[in-house]
Formats: sequence, structure tokens, C-alpha cells
Amino acid sequence: MIEVAVTGAGGHMGREVIAAATDRDGMAVTLAVNRTSVDPVAGHEVEDEGELPALLAAREPDVLVDFTLPDPSTRYVEACADAGVAAVVGTTGFSESQLSVLTGAAESVPVLRAANFARGVAALRRAIREAVAAVPSYDVELTETHHNRKRDAPSGTALTILDDVEGARDDADADRVHGREGEQPREDGEIGVHARRAGDVTGEHELLLAGNHEVLTLTHRAESRGVFAEGALDAAEWVVGHSAGEYDFEDAL
Amino acid sequence: MIEVAVTGAGGHMGREVIAAATDRDGMAVTLAVNRTSVDPVAGHEVEDEGELPALLAAREPDVLVDFTLPDPSTRYVEACADAGVAAVVGTTGFSESQLSVLTGAAESVPVLRAANFARGVAALRRAIREAVAAVPSYDVELTETHHNRKRDAPSGTALTILDDVEGARDDADADRVHGREGEQPREDGEIGVHARRAGDVTGEHELLLAGNHEVLTLTHRAESRGVFAEGALDAAEWVVGHSAGEYDFEDAL
Amino acid sequence: MIEVAVTGAGGHMGREVIAAATDRDGMAVTLAVNRTSVDPVAGHEVEDEGELPALLAAREPDVLVDFTLPDPSTRYVEACADAGVAAVVGTTGFSESQLSVLTGAAESVPVLRAANFARGVAALRRAIREAVAAVPSYDVELTETHHNRKRDAPSGTALTILDDVEGARDDADADRVHGREGEQPREDGEIGVHARRAGDVTGEHELLLAGNHEVLTLTHRAESRGVFAEGALDAAEWVVGHSAGEYDFEDAL
Amino acid sequence: MIEVAVTGAGGHMGREVIAAATDRDGMAVTLAVNRTSVDPVAGHEVEDEGELPALLAAREPDVLVDFTLPDPSTRYVEACADAGVAAVVGTTGFSESQLSVLTGAAESVPVLRAANFARGVAALRRAIREAVAAVPSYDVELTETHHNRKRDAPSGTALTILDDVEGARDDADADRVHGREGEQPREDGEIGVHARRAGDVTGEHELLLAGNHEVLTLTHRAESRGVFAEGALDAAEWVVGHSAGEYDFEDAL
Repeated sequence: MIEVAVTGAGGHMGREVIAAATDRDGMAVTLAVNRTSVDPVAGHEVEDEGELPALLAAREPDVLVDFTLPDPSTRYVEACADAGVAAVVGTTGFSESQLSVLTGAAESVPVLRAANFARGVAALRRAIREAVAAVPSYDVELTETHHNRKRDAPSGTALTILDDVEGARDDADADRVHGREGEQPREDGEIGVHARRAGDVTGEHELLLAGNHEVLTLTHRAESRGVFAEGALDAAEWVVGHSAGEYDFEDAL
Repeated sequence: MIEVAVTGAGGHMGREVIAAATDRDGMAVTLAVNRTSVDPVAGHEVEDEGELPALLAAREPDVLVDFTLPDPSTRYVEACADAGVAAVVGTTGFSESQLSVLTGAAESVPVLRAANFARGVAALRRAIREAVAAVPSYDVELTETHHNRKRDAPSGTALTILDDVEGARDDADADRVHGREGEQPREDGEIGVHARRAGDVTGEHELLLAGNHEVLTLTHRAESRGVFAEGALDAAEWVVGHSAGEYDFEDAL
Repeated sequence: MIEVAVTGAGGHMGREVIAAATDRDGMAVTLAVNRTSVDPVAGHEVEDEGELPALLAAREPDVLVDFTLPDPSTRYVEACADAGVAAVVGTTGFSESQLSVLTGAAESVPVLRAANFARGVAALRRAIREAVAAVPSYDVELTETHHNRKRDAPSGTALTILDDVEGARDDADADRVHGREGEQPREDGEIGVHARRAGDVTGEHELLLAGNHEVLTLTHRAESRGVFAEGALDAAEWVVGHSAGEYDFEDAL
Repeated sequence: MIEVAVTGAGGHMGREVIAAATDRDGMAVTLAVNRTSVDPVAGHEVEDEGELPALLAAREPDVLVDFTLPDPSTRYVEACADAGVAAVVGTTGFSESQLSVLTGAAESVPVLRAANFARGVAALRRAIREAVAAVPSYDVELTETHHNRKRDAPSGTALTILDDVEGARDDADADRVHGREGEQPREDGEIGVHARRAGDVTGEHELLLAGNHEVLTLTHRAESRGVFAEGALDAAEWVVGHSAGEYDFEDAL
């Protein structure tokens, strides 16, 4: 039985993680914390995050799963290092100095961190790298679609894919064009980036490659946030028993 | 047998029209003109456009098909009015004063003018008006894809579709957002417009409607420029025998 | 405040309806019944369906929403007629004699019945009828995608769309071809029907129309079952206050 | 200057190859043959295929490009071996004994043979192998779309992709289901194969992978037959100067 601690238990992703871990065979949620006081989640009492170091020492979970914000996330991972608990981190937006705290923690415990825990996104990224390397001269346009409440564009996953494309084309400085309007001819090598915002779309990313009278499209669509919770739990299962160090989601696949 | 005159015979669309009219049963190309001297097109001698009035009077074709530029197109339609020849006009970008010349010509002969002669685009526009009217509160995003040599964005057809959406929503002043980057939350009622430019794509338009955990997409794709030539010839067949007046492609369907 | 009774409260759709009605402003669940004993759903006590006639008389809800099976559904609608309660019915598969019971009930109360309560599917159907009527000679292929647990093919919604296509083409007897293998040339007028089954896909329907070097696709995708619950509640809001009679979901849009 | 000989010069693909080779820098068509007498193609006299051995000896082209039928293709490649001319073969449907003739010829000259010369299809196949290997437990459905005159289903390229999927899943005997109708639950590991036939579609292949509330689609679309001619000429440029042996299109990329 893998015992899991969950931070941000009252948040959107925290709730998904608790629900998914509760349903999963061979896994149990033995600790849930939140910064503010909330009602039990899926039957699990939610405790005060300020008590996390003591609670980790007392309960000795195998792994902590964290989807919160950079500041608290950094503190949580330090607490994991002190308590000898592995950490799976889905939080994004860390500063350089926060990242070096995480690296320090990874000297004591395994720390697996990723921007996207959908297995399918990992599969998409591999497929994209292969396809771009096979037709490196083809024009590239990236279109992502998310719900109308998302405030930033493009998505973090889109940025990761753009880096993948640049790596596969061996062209680190492609010009990224966000939308086109008026007289705006396409320059060689530029990458068009299109952020659609509509309805409740969970998340869709499409890379289009075109040249020579042919078109390739490589697309990933998440149908629910549960995708990301399940992927984080796959990562949690994998990371338990590995030695201290920094890992990413691809390592767990 | 419908006898067709073709202007801009040496141009891209003129050549398509001549080839398609030559292949069509019950139709013959009896006059082809161009502003500059060119070799025969699909076996048809190409004559000097300066002679068009005299040639129309002498050959008496049933209908003239024109995909050229606003200035010459206006002169050609006037010549049609003088000679009693129907006109099908695919040229775009007329000024107000040029449009009133066309309207004057339509007092003598039928003049059918359209920005897009793909039957499927007409079908798409009808479908879009129905769908938007059925879910007027859903978010709308329009994505169009064209070859990498297209210099302007969005396409003329995209602009027509945006007008259709606004008409169907009874909201003439929707904010049109061309690409999104950085912190840019979606405003109520705004329409996202995305122009992709890649490879040799002939032309694709996709309207996305989303709300209430569901997504509708309505898409048209042209696989060759022949689509537009065939549609213009359908219009030519229809306009012959109709009385003087202004028509558009929808009338012919 | 519209007071709603829900049958099949322990079932998949019943739970969705109760959750959505509880969240909706101006609406309250005042009665929930099920054939078997179940725990409270979203805080609502679930009572025995055998008591439904008495409970309707006592509580006087405005409308009953039913996603169950033909036999119990027929009894529930009769009870509505006796108690003067409007009914929204999402159950499918009624026999002719059961349908005439529903018709009889509709003499006393409004009864709104539909196979699909997604507003977007209604919008898609309207769009399809327009598009097919605009290009009736184009080839038609229908592709639907559902989760891998769905046992029947094609989906009920696909069958409805096929009827729409035949109506719009004025061709009641199109040959429906389910998959193609080996030497199998396409016959004029046939409709290809393709049922994809994969993963957890909630439901997607795509109609493809092609001819004359162009392709139209009209697609609907549901991202969660909540779509159908919300549509049923829209129907419930609409039907309350209407006079006795039979209605369908299109009337409510 | 690479000098190219083209067989089947009067056929659909032969004409495409001649046109594309004529337009390409550093390449010239110096020999064109056909089994029946035809008019010049793109200005090139077409000679009698019976004279091919003598013509190859006299003109000494660098490479022969062949899209014909198994019987004549086998003879042409033998003539290439005798004359020391490299061969690019796009013909399909060879028997085992014909294939061994080709293998024999490849002892004298380089022979590059492929079922599909679209660079994008090669890219798609690589992407598919990566994606399937990353999520091997996901359900797979393959949908291909071709014009309504194609008589066989599924396409040769679809069959190649299915082999790729089986290889990547390490499951050589997946059950292939061609369409579904009626009560037909999905079996574990089966692959759905859907052949759509509509209008003039040049060719589209889409692989769908789904599981865990997410969906991947990997798609290739050819917009004209010129794709295949250009790929064959890329292969021709590559094969010239290589030593004798058997090659496939992937080697040339």
C-alpha cells in the first residue's frame, strides 16, 4: 500500500488527486493539508498546512503530491526532504532561487516535477519531435484551445511544445507570431501560435506541419482534469523506491 | 450550348475557368482576352483586352466570367452591359464608385458577383448561421488556414463568415481578437480570429462554438482552386436567361 | 423558484441532474426517488419510487425530470398527469403502446421528450439540414466516437442525424454502409457510417460532405455528461408554465 | 544535372513525375516511355516501352522512375540492371517471384522501392510508432478518407500504419474490426479500421489513441498527387551515387 500526502487539498487539483488516489488499488490518502480551513474531501479530514513538517514525521507517508503555488510548494518539498518523503510536484512558475531549493531537496529524496502529467501529452511530445525531425523544413503552426476562464496565453504546455519543435529543428530562435492581422506575410522559419479560448474546453493542443502539398496534424485533447491527477499518481507510484534525485514525468513512463 | 467569354485568360483563375469550361458539357469558350500577350490557353487563342467591346459585339457570347482586378473588371462589366452579355464577377476589392458602375450595368444585363464561388462555402455559411442562432451565447472562435504565400489576414471569406456570425447573434459590434498573448482574458462576446499560414494549403475555414461542456466545429476545406472555377461556371449557367439585375452566388444555388 | 422532482436518482444521469439542479439559480430539488434504496445524493434524501404518486400529490413539484427505462418512465409520466406535474423525459426505447400512454398523459400536462438534450446537438442537426440541402449531391459519411464500453453502434444520435440527412436530401432510402473492407466501391447515394470506440470519449459526431474538390465537416463533441443534464434542466424551465401537450427539445430552444 | 527516365509516361503518376522533374532545378527528363502511343507530355516525346533497353543504353540516364504495374515494372528494373541505371519504384502489388527479380537487379544497381512517397507519411509513421510505444494500452482506431472512385479498402498506406501500430505494441495479431454495427462491444486490443469514401479527397489518414480521459490524433493529408511525384524525385536524387542494393523511402529522408 502506497501512502500518499496531498497538499492544496481544498483546491481544484488537490480534490482530483484525493479522489483518484482514494479510488486506486494499492494506494491510500493518509494526510491532506490546506492553507485555509476546508470541509473533509472525499471523507479525508483536511489539516493545517502549518503542521505539515510534524505531520509528515508522525504519519510517514511514502510520497507527497503537490499542485499548489511556488511559495508554499517550495516549503512543502523542503519538509519532504527533512522527513524522508518522496515528492511529486505539478506546481509551475518557480523562480530560479526556488528551483535551487528543490534541487537541494533532491539530494535527500526523489523529487519528480513536471508541467503536465497527462501521459498523452508526453506521447504527443515524443511524436512531435519525431515528425518535426523528419520534415524540418515544413511550416509549423501551433493551436491550443482552453476554457474561457484561462487568463494567460499561450498555455505552459504550448510553450513546452514550442521548445520541443525548436530542439527538433535545431533552431533555438524561431520567431513566434501570436495571431496575424492585416498585411503580414509569413517569414521563413517563423512559428504561428494561436490561443483559442472557448466554453469549458479542458485543454487541446494541435501542431500543424505543412509543405509540399501535404499537411500533418498532431493533436492531444484532455477530456477532464482527472487525466492530470491520474498521471501524477502514476508518477507517485514510480518515484517511491527510487533513489534521491531530480526526475521528470518522462522518466516515469 | 452556353458560350463563355473569359477575361484575365493568362491569370491563375482565368486558366482554371477556361480549362473547366472547355471540359463542361453544354458549354464552350468562344472568347478569351488578357491584358498582356500570352500563348493559347487550353487551345484557345487569347486576344487583346482592349478589343473586348468589339469582340463581344462580334461573337455575342452568352456570359462573361471575370477574375481580374477592380479597374479592368469595372470596364469589362460596362462592356457587357453595352453588348447585352451577362457577367459573372469573382474579382474583389471594388471601391464604392466602382460598385455603383456595376450597379448601373445591372440595369441592362444580369450581373452576378461573389467573393467566393465554392458551393461548399455557401453551404458552410448557411450552416453557421443556423448553428449560431441555435446557441447564440456560446463562445465563437474562427480559424482559417491558407498557404504561406498569402500576405493578408484574415481571409476575405473569414470576414464574410464573421459578418454572418454577428448577424446571427444580432450583435453587430463584436470585438474581434486576432491572436492572444500574455495576460489576455477573454471578454464576453469577443470573437477570436486565428490566421494560420502553412505550406500549400488551398484554403480551410473552421468556426468553433463552445459552451456548456460541448463544442461544435463547422469546417470547409478546398482541395484545389478548381472548386472556385466550377462554382463560377455554375453561376454562369444560372445567370444566362435571367433578367437584368444584381445577383449573388447564393441566388444561383 | 422551480421545484424539481428527479427519478432514477441513484443512476448515472439522475445524479448529474440532481447535482446540476442543486447548483442552478432559481431551481431546487424537492423530491428524488429511485427503484432501489440508495444513499442521499448531493444531500437529497432518495425515496422509494413506489410512493411517487403520493409524493407528487404532497410536495407538488413543478416538473419531473426522468432518465430511466421505458417501463418505469411510462408509470412516472402517468403519475405526473394525475398530479398535474409537467414532465421532461430523456428515457429512450419506448414501445408504440408506451408512447400512446405518454400521448394520453400529454392531454393533462406538458410532456417534453427528446433523445438528446445537448443544445449543441440540436444546433448541429439544424446546421446539417442546411448544409445537406445546399449541396445535396455531395457524398455523405458519418463518423461517431464513443467510449469503449458502449455496446451498440451506431449511436442513437447518429441514427437521428442519418434521418435528418435523408430528409434534407429527399431520399428516404439511402443505403447505409457500416465500414468498408476489400473490394467495395462506393455506390451513388450511399452513406458511410463509422462507429469508433475508444477510451472514455463522452461522445462525438462528425458529418463529412464532399464533392467538387471540397470537403465540409460538421462536428459536435460533448466533454461531459453534464451537457445532457443542463439541457434537460433548460427544458424543465421552459416546459413549466406551458400548456398541456407534447413537446420536443427543439421547442425549448 | 540528374537525368531521369520515366516509365508509364502517359499515366496519371507518370505525367506528374515528368511535370515535377521538368520544373526541378538540377534535373532533366531525358527519356519517357509508355506502353501505348501518347502525345508529348510537358514537351517530352514519349517513346515505345519495347525499346527501353536500347534507349537506356543509348541515353544513359542516371535514374529511372516507375509508377506502373507489377509485370512491366519488373521488366523495367531488369533493363535498369543491365544498363547500370538506378531505379525508383512506386509500383505496388508485386508477387513473391517478381520481388526476387527486383532483389536480383539490386545486386547490380541501387533499387529504391516504396508504397508511399509522401515525406509526410514517413513522418507520420515515425510519429505513430513513438506515440503508440508511449501509451501502448490506449485504444487505437484508424480512419482513412479517399475519393469516391477508390475501389479497395482500407488503403495500402493504412495497412502499413496498422503494421506499425502492431510493431510498436509488440502485438502482431491485433483483431482488426472494419466498421461496427448493432450489438458489437469492443474487445481488448482490437483496432477499429474505418474507410471513408467521399468526393475527390486525395488521401487522409488519422490514427486515434484514447484512454484515461484523453485523446491523441495523428493525421496526414495529401492535397494533391504531386506530393508523391516530388517524394519520388527526392528519392531519385538520393539514390543516384549510392551503391547497388535495396533501399526504401525512409533511407532517403
